[in-house]
Formats: sequence, structure tokens, C-alpha cells
Amino acid sequence: MAVFQNRMPRYEILSEDAMATLDKGWRRLVTEIGVEFMSDRALDLFRQAGQKVEENTVFFDPDFILEQVAKAPREFDVAARNPANSIHIGGDSMAFGAVYGPPFVRAGEVRRDATMDDFRNFTKLAQTFDALDSAGGVVCEPNDTPLDSRHLDMTYALQTLTDKPYMGNVVSGVNAADTIAMGSILFGGRDVIEKTPASISLINCNSPLKWDDRMLEAQFEYSAANQAVVLTPFILMGAMSPVTIPAALVQQITEALTGITLSQLIRPGSPCLFGSFLSNIDMQSGSPTFGTPESGIGLLCTGQIARHFGLPFRTGGALTSSQVPDAQAGYEALMTMLPTFLAGTNWVMHSAGWLEGGLVAGFEKFIMDIELLQMLRVEFTPLEIDEESMAFGAHEEVGHGGHFLGAMHTMERFRTCFYRPLLSSSENYERWMRNGGVDAAGRATKIYQKKLEEYEAPAIDDAVREELEEYVVRRRKELGD
Amino acid sequence: MAVFQNRMPRYEILSEDAMATLDKGWRRLVTEIGVEFMSDRALDLFRQAGQKVEENTVFFDPDFILEQVAKAPREFDVAARNPANSIHIGGDSMAFGAVYGPPFVRAGEVRRDATMDDFRNFTKLAQTFDALDSAGGVVCEPNDTPLDSRHLDMTYALQTLTDKPYMGNVVSGVNAADTIAMGSILFGGRDVIEKTPASISLINCNSPLKWDDRMLEAQFEYSAANQAVVLTPFILMGAMSPVTIPAALVQQITEALTGITLSQLIRPGSPCLFGSFLSNIDMQSGSPTFGTPESGIGLLCTGQIARHFGLPFRTGGALTSSQVPDAQAGYEALMTMLPTFLAGTNWVMHSAGWLEGGLVAGFEKFIMDIELLQMLRVEFTPLEIDEESMAFGAHEEVGHGGHFLGAMHTMERFRTCFYRPLLSSSENYERWMRNGGVDAAGRATKIYQKKLEEYEAPAIDDAVREELEEYVVRRRKELGD
Repeated sequence: MAVFQNRMPRYEILSEDAMATLDKGWRRLVTEIGVEFMSDRALDLFRQAGQKVEENTVFFDPDFILEQVAKAPREFDVAARNPANSIHIGGDSMAFGAVYGPPFVRAGEVRRDATMDDFRNFTKLAQTFDALDSAGGVVCEPNDTPLDSRHLDMTYALQTLTDKPYMGNVVSGVNAADTIAMGSILFGGRDVIEKTPASISLINCNSPLKWDDRMLEAQFEYSAANQAVVLTPFILMGAMSPVTIPAALVQQITEALTGITLSQLIRPGSPCLFGSFLSNIDMQSGSPTFGTPESGIGLLCTGQIARHFGLPFRTGGALTSSQVPDAQAGYEALMTMLPTFLAGTNWVMHSAGWLEGGLVAGFEKFIMDIELLQMLRVEFTPLEIDEESMAFGAHEEVGHGGHFLGAMHTMERFRTCFYRPLLSSSENYERWMRNGGVDAAGRATKIYQKKLEEYEAPAIDDAVREELEEYVVRRRKELGD
Repeated sequence: MAVFQNRMPRYEILSEDAMATLDKGWRRLVTEIGVEFMSDRALDLFRQAGQKVEENTVFFDPDFILEQVAKAPREFDVAARNPANSIHIGGDSMAFGAVYGPPFVRAGEVRRDATMDDFRNFTKLAQTFDALDSAGGVVCEPNDTPLDSRHLDMTYALQTLTDKPYMGNVVSGVNAADTIAMGSILFGGRDVIEKTPASISLINCNSPLKWDDRMLEAQFEYSAANQAVVLTPFILMGAMSPVTIPAALVQQITEALTGITLSQLIRPGSPCLFGSFLSNIDMQSGSPTFGTPESGIGLLCTGQIARHFGLPFRTGGALTSSQVPDAQAGYEALMTMLPTFLAGTNWVMHSAGWLEGGLVAGFEKFIMDIELLQMLRVEFTPLEIDEESMAFGAHEEVGHGGHFLGAMHTMERFRTCFYRPLLSSSENYERWMRNGGVDAAGRATKIYQKKLEEYEAPAIDDAVREELEEYVVRRRKELGD
């Protein structure tokens, strides 16, 4: 298990007083405003557990919520079919998945509907780079495949083109059940995946304060099977929450904790993450905006809040509003990804490829984001400071005003001492021009194309592959596609 | 005085043990290897103060260094001719100057020798944006003006086109004396600027462990006149220091502290900054690289180290190796500027316009960097978390699954609740295409051109301006240009 361990300090910006105020806030929200659950099964569970239910709204006892939340494991594993790629969620571990959900792709100057072929290519790229622990789930929306059985094609691609953990489909309870069935085939039985989850799935809240039926159906399937779920308030401040960040944080706590409470009622001890997708809209246009200062602040607070409740958490990513992989895409992606590391985020979705507010999966952007991930892994590795690292001998060797390039101390270390970039160029101007004067986006094109050419599928047992294929064919027929 | 106050926590990554090890390191370096000073005046001062001098090398008693360093003020002001623009250096204050030193400029697709006209344009842009506290000094190298009197033209431009603080010329003692003389004219007498410094000047070390004569001559002038100096080790790890970061940090401490010691011998109590310019080279090509993980780590450590010695400090900037204002320029600039804020840097050079490893001052890059500065100011402003900010009433108004856009709570705050971008676009794809499909660099062109068109020179007393002009004309003649 090679998931990145962030041993650097957490950057925490909420005082104890601030945290106490937020605590008062969510307690008041769950008690007085309550949360809507558009599922009779969910309402029944809450009613049986003694919570006040009026129509679809549940009014909670805050201490009941904390009791349930305490049943969720603080840390857990998610299995990959290659055990070396299994991930740990929680503690100092940070695991990264690719972009999730875009209906469009961008490759160079072309922006178009995403296809199953794009889906496979992004999945292959995710397999290729060590910086990604998972291709995620809906890496892009394969619009050229039949809608009702699309989840089978995606899951099959994730299971066969990578040997890393994958995310489960959440469009419906039926889709979730299919994902679980295919996981059972891949891992050798439902009992196996019930022991160690073999998927991690995104359950979004219809913020503010409402959980919709289809997502809840998926949650019921996954939590019952002890699969990991990420209960995620989907908040663009100004639209899905009040415009003030503290209000968004309080709402986020309310939504995440009530979602986790439901999972614990479905199956006590089932693995849950405190989810966060928190940015804001542009108040002039109503457009969603990403990589904003407000989202950075929200991100840092989220980490601290999740730790306050003893929960592993998901937030961050390489988000941007930019339409193209330009300077804005570069700085906005880092404006979210660097705080993602500062917060010590356990599960990071949208780590590579996110473009245009998540509407587009960008091939060039994918490569840029890999570069950021690789750099930040180095940056968030603690320094070793000891007598030897101070290199007194190198100073004796070089002297005042001298040059360390040829020093023995340098020669012994030059291959590994500094991060070697994947994408960034430090060529001098003349050489850069001789090489075509290509900017970062142009270089990224060449890199992703080369990586796709070099891609090798990870080995898989033929019998397992056949069983998966049969499942897909059979279920597609049953679903009428 | 409107300089940004960073009231957020500092992100500190060195343990007490690590700091103690670094302390042992610099003590050993100053004692056993010593530091070269290519100035008889400096050597005489050190000899008189009881330090061991052999040829040009001074071997220090580390406690003597700490005694001298303790005489430097922890905080001080640098005056602007418009008192509202004076800056405070130290404590929570962060002040920002533009790029310093590039011989070339880039405007759109054109890269060429910088001219005095470019110098004036960058200076005007620096005056225009509140995010910059100073145009800096050599905003770019005006190659079309005579070399020996160029400092007069630059200083005159900085004094008249802005009413913000400026940096002093450091090419020689003569140039420094001219800068001081012109400051005395602008501020109404040498006694006035000796009371509150009217310039801040960059004294670079010829790293490793060597201070050159011309910079030292400038330092003598400035410190004698009680002007602020930034004693800056100029370290590209692998070339000017060993490849290990701890070694670079120890060397940086040694160089900065010995430079500050000299200033305190020249004039006890004169204002000094602990300077840092710390990145690394690419070990394959030998090219300098910026925005690297190693530079980020160095930057965070530098802040902590400077505070350890009770000194205000300079580090960071919006550095990049990129040849053009592309995605790499965006993420590398932020990869240095975000840690610059995390470290709570007091004086930030190269905050806007730095491109191509500092060889190029870029007009588009300037605008991108202003955007980053503006965003980070918002991000590093503490949240106010109180009952009202939690907006309980907005939830009562909107209800489950509702929309906050039209809520009263939103309407009352929508103008100021979120950062409004200068450069970043969140236009939807269709609108963005209708508007020309222009990327961030293209939009930046329009912004800087418009700002230059709108520029208005800050008022200056006619008599003062005439006296400055006369000084420039007279000195140019004396210098033979």
C-alpha cells in the first residue's frame, strides 16, 4: 500500500471559540430546521431510532447524531485488485482520484461530447501515473453508450484497465447493486468485499439540507454492503448555501453528519467520509467559480472540522473555472490543491483533468495536475535535518564564492536531490525556441499521447474477466439496452 | 499606511530539534569556514570589533554576531512621499514590490530588450494596483539609457510616477549616494530620511559565503544613512550551495546574519532584513528552476528562521521558469506566492511580472500576479465567525433544497461577499466563445493596456520635481553620460 503519507503539520485556522460557535450552529440547524430525506426507508430508520419526523423532514437530537457518527471507523482500507495499490483512508494518508462527472472532453483545441473511448483513455492515464491512486468513477460521461447500462461499461473499464481502487456508480440503487455484484466477481465474493470495501462512492446532498431518493437508494446498497461512502454536501455558496462562509460550514456539517448518521443506521460501523465540495458562485453572473479564496478558506476549515468529529474526509481537487488549460487553470488548480495538502485531505476527488467548472475533462489539464500532485508530494515530505545534511565538508571543498556543481557532495546526490519535472520547462529561451517554443499546454499534449501509446493493461485472470463480461452482457439485456 | 496585515497563523515546519541543529550549523560555518568580505572598510570594522580576519576572510564569534543582530530593529517603517502609502516592515505586515532586474520584457508574443519606456510603464502599473506597495527598484533594465547614469533615470521615474516607497540602486556606492541624495530632495532633507528610511535596498551575497565590493560599498552608504537594506543570500541550490536543503538553510543564515552584522557595525540600529532568494538548479541542464517543491520548503523554513532571530525578512515572490505566461507560469507563481503568505513574509520582491527565471519582465504575467496577490489577501484574512455569520434566518427563509440567490441575507451582501476577479473568467463556454474565446494571457493584455491608458500621475510639488530634474541633469554630466 503506497498511498502518500502527509507527515507535515496541518494548517488549522479555526480557533476553539470558532469551533464552539460552529458546533452551536449545526446543533441548532438539525434541531430547528431539520434535514429532508426523500426516502421512506430512511425516514423509517430515523423514526425507529427516536428522531422526530414530519413529512420528509427529520428533526434530530444532536447528541444522537454524535453517537451514530462515533460508530463510523476513523480509518479504513479500500482494496484494489492489485494489493499493492490498495489504499488507506484516514490519518495521515492522502489518496487521489481523477476528475469525476464531466459530460465533455477537451483535447488541444477540440472540445466535444465525451465518449467511452475518452473514458478508457483517461482510465489508462490514471493507471499510468503513480500520483493517482484511482481513476475515480465517472472519469467522463460516455455519451455514446446506452444510458441505462453505461454504469456496467464504466465499472468494467475501471476494473480491467486499472488495478487500482475505483468508485461506485450512484445513479440509482440498481446501479449500486450492479457495482457491488461486479466487485464481488472481481474480488471473489461478496463476503470478501464486505470485509474490506472494494469501492468508494460519492453520495451528494441536494444542498441545502435535502437528500434525494436516488442517491439515498445507492447509499442504502453501499452501506449495507460495507462499502465506503463519501457523504458530500454540494455547496456553491450564494446558491446552495448562504453567502457567508461560516454559514456554509455549519450547513456542511449538518448535511455530512446526518448523511453519515443514516449510513450508521443502515449498518453500524460501515465506512463513511465527511465529504465537502465547497465553492461559491460569481454574484454578478451566477456562474460557479473555482479556485477562489473563499473555497481555499472553506477547504482549510473543512479538514479541521472533520478531525473535530474524528472522521476521515474528502475535499479539494485541482479545480478551476477556466475554459482552457491556461494560466488561470494553472493557478486555480493549485489554489485548491495546495490547501488540499495543507488540510491533510484523506480522499481527493478531481485530482487530475478537471476543467471548465467540471463540465470538461481535459487531457492536457490532466497532465498539468499530475505535475502538481508530484510536486506537492515532495513539498509535503518533511525535511531530514541532521549533521550530514548540513554538508559541512562540501563547504570545505568549495570555498568562498565557489561553485558546487562539481563538488563530491553534489556528484553523490545529483540524480535524486531535486524533483524532476514531468511538464515544467526551465530551458533557456534559445533552446526553448529551437525546440518549437511550445507552451505547457502544448507539451502536455505530447506527454499524454505518449503515455497512452506506452500504456500496458495490468494482467487479470481470464476467468474473472469472462465472468465480468458475462455479467455486463446479461445485465445490459435485462436493463433493455 | 495600508500594508496588508497577515493575521492568519504561520505555517511552521521546523521542529525545535531541527532549529537547534541549524543553529549548530551556522555557528560552525562562521567559526571554521568564515565569510569573505571584498572590502577593506568592512574588514577593518570586523577587526576593530575583535573578529579574526585572515586576508579577506572573517572568522566570527557566533555570539558576537547575535549581539550585533540584536541591535537591528524588529520592525520599522519605510516612508512614501504620500504618507498613506508608507509601509511597515515586520510583525504581521506584508509589503509587496514588483519584479526586479530583468534585462528583457515580454508583451504578448514579443520578447525584446527592455527599455526606459517599459520601465516607466511597469512603474505606472505598480502605482495603479493597490495590491503592490512599491514598484520595487530595477523593474526592468532600461537598456536604451546610458549605463553610468541609468540609476538617476530609474530613481526619478520611481519618485515621480509613483508616490509609493521605492528601492535604492545598489550597483555601486556612487549610485547609492545618488539615490540617497535624491531621496533627501524628495523628502526635504537627509535628516528627514535618516529618521524614517525612504528607501529599501537589495544587497546580494555572492553565495557561497562571499560579499563583493560594489554591493558592500552600496551597503555602507545606505546603512550609514539609516536606509533599509535587505541582506540576501542568492542561492540556487546545487550551484551556490550544497544540494541539500538544510545545508542551504545553514549557509543562508550565515550569509544573512554576517551581512546584517556589518550593517550594525556601520550604524548600530540601522534597519535590516533577513533576505532569502532560494531555489535550485535543474541538475540535468544546470538551468535555474523556480516554483519548485524545494524552493517552497526553503521558503517556509526561512520565515521561521528569521523569526527565530527576531528579524523582519524578505523571501518569495511570483517566481517561475516559464518562458511565457502559460499554465506553468500560473502554477509556479502560486507555488512560491502561497508559501510566501503562509510564511508571513514581511517584504516580498518579484511579486508581479517575473517571467523566464527573472530574465523577463512580462506585462501579462504582471496582471496574473496582481490577481494572485488580490486573491491571497482575501484568503489570508481571518474568518469572522459569530451568530450572525451563521445566517440561521437565511435557512428559515429558503428551506430544504431551495435557492439562496434571491434571499434577503444574500441581497444584503452580494456586492462584497466574494472576491471579484480581475483576470479569471468563469463565463460559460458559449458566452466565452462569443467573447472571442480569449485565454487568461490574452485577457491580461487588454487589462494592462487599459490600466496604462487610464494611468494618472500622482501630484508632486513643482519645486521638488525641478530640483530632482536639476540633480539628474547635473549628475549625468558629472558621470560623463
